Amino acid sequence: MGEFELIQRCFAEAGRKRTDVAIGIGDDGAVLQVREGCDLVITTDSMVEGIHFFPDVDPRSLGHKLVAVNVSDLAAMGAEPCWLSLALTLPKVDEDWLTAFAEGLSETADYYNCQLIGGDTTRGPLSLTMIAKGLVPKGKAITRAGAQNGDYLYVTGTLGDAALGLQLVQNKVEISKKHRAHILQRFHYPTARVALGQALRNIASAAMDISDGLAGDLPHILRRSKVGAVVDVSKLPMSQALKDSCSPEQAVQYALSGGEDYELLFTVPENRRGSLEVLLSPYGVPVTCIGRITGAVGKLDFKQGDAPFLYQHYGFEHF
Amino acid sequence: MGEFELIQRCFAEAGRKRTDVAIGIGDDGAVLQVREGCDLVITTDSMVEGIHFFPDVDPRSLGHKLVAVNVSDLAAMGAEPCWLSLALTLPKVDEDWLTAFAEGLSETADYYNCQLIGGDTTRGPLSLTMIAKGLVPKGKAITRAGAQNGDYLYVTGTLGDAALGLQLVQNKVEISKKHRAHILQRFHYPTARVALGQALRNIASAAMDISDGLAGDLPHILRRSKVGAVVDVSKLPMSQALKDSCSPEQAVQYALSGGEDYELLFTVPENRRGSLEVLLSPYGVPVTCIGRITGAVGKLDFKQGDAPFLYQHYGFEHF
Repeated sequence: MGEFELIQRCFAEAGRKRTDVAIGIGDDGAVLQVREGCDLVITTDSMVEGIHFFPDVDPRSLGHKLVAVNVSDLAAMGAEPCWLSLALTLPKVDEDWLTAFAEGLSETADYYNCQLIGGDTTRGPLSLTMIAKGLVPKGKAITRAGAQNGDYLYVTGTLGDAALGLQLVQNKVEISKKHRAHILQRFHYPTARVALGQALRNIASAAMDISDGLAGDLPHILRRSKVGAVVDVSKLPMSQALKDSCSPEQAVQYALSGGEDYELLFTVPENRRGSLEVLLSPYGVPVTCIGRITGAVGKLDFKQGDAPFLYQHYGFEHF
Repeated sequence: MGEFELIQRCFAEAGRKRTDVAIGIGDDGAVLQVREGCDLVITTDSMVEGIHFFPDVDPRSLGHKLVAVNVSDLAAMGAEPCWLSLALTLPKVDEDWLTAFAEGLSETADYYNCQLIGGDTTRGPLSLTMIAKGLVPKGKAITRAGAQNGDYLYVTGTLGDAALGLQLVQNKVEISKKHRAHILQRFHYPTARVALGQALRNIASAAMDISDGLAGDLPHILRRSKVGAVVDVSKLPMSQALKDSCSPEQAVQYALSGGEDYELLFTVPENRRGSLEVLLSPYGVPVTCIGRITGAVGKLDFKQGDAPFLYQHYGFEHF
């Protein structure tokens, strides 16, 4: 079997078989049947060795993460994930590595009801680009641009776990045996909040997913919505694992500036707040109000309870 | 202005503004209004420095080529190009380079009536991945799988020019002044056969674009359609520039195994052959019958007029 056939075989069956894929892998392009009454949502995320992952990363978790971070962008728009494309640049063809990577990718695509429908493979420095396509009822996509003065600011799940996980895999911190599995799971196997994102369609005025840390990402909503915000750091939701593993000050730093949590950050107008907890309770993911949108355009302030909180941002910057 | 803003500014306005783009660059994903009655066609092509282009390539032509090769895949499926995404991995931010690249990309996107609607930028070894999205009337996409025994085999334009151009930019051949511009144009600025591809929807039984050379690409149609083919090399369409620049034997080699022509290769059933020339004449691109589909599954034979032609394949292989 040649290298080309090996790559083909690894990815031929990735993900769930969807009936709306008229032509999948193997032609000049894929042909997809878009459900009527829906808009198409498209996201792109690249992961480059040495920038987004270490050379010795477990290829199965890499395959998982590539799908999850892309699907997370769809979730943030309230879209239902459908189809994935993969552009894979490989320095060499390593059968064990490729098989494990493809398995991680397949399992996660399947979990999110997505099918891999095409892509491109070339030789070069290791880099992965995924393009995820989803559907949302016409006009119902949740953007970053709809937040208004007075809206309440929420996040899903807990913050900071993935940042602590990154320190852990670099042997920069010690974590008790009890909490290691949870923290590593959160770093290697993030969960895209897909069902919750769709439930937010008629509730949230704006939403995005947190990939570069709350303090780095929230300004995107503020810029696009032309508003400001106040965040109460005493409200930031944190896992017991994070709280037990570092000082309260350090935990807040992780929660504010740590990347890769892939939780949703969203805003809710006051008149829809009442229905929020009821509507979201079936999803089993906690949502926490952490602050409020203000009219101070572009201004992001932090407080801790009633006291001001000084925060120096050290977020992740690609450039 | 920071590097992030520079990149944003370069690409913010790339291509034609389309009214079916509800949300473009700047959110978690793009939101696109898919015309009713249409299927969605998606293609992905990566270009990696040192594999697909030389480090000293003119960034404007690189921007052009990236769009053209992706749009060419859409053309081969009979689709109308609409939207482009770009995943850009850059070792550093060089304003002049980026500006020229973005201009080439923009001009060509505009030419094909496409809008850049999103993507991702990361630091790393230079590599470009484009994802092109197009529309085709439901069920009308032309695939590689429909060729039947007895169908006639056609190509658009001329073959081998780009392969000669590759030799020229590497200073491996001499070309007369009269022909240099044509050959360089064909190599640096390939044309996607978009209008012709759409015109083929009700004529061609199968189609693909020639990116890796006729002899390397035709087997894809044979495999997917479960047929064979005979190609008459004396019929291969060649430019005067190619014919004047090398021996007849060398010209045939370029035409058969040279990559990057981005012409369409398609098959036409006998009963639609009559209408072919009439229907395609308005497009101003010559189409040439170069052979015939046979029932000998997977078998590709070459002849030269009535004589057999021995051909050793040296096509471009990514792996």
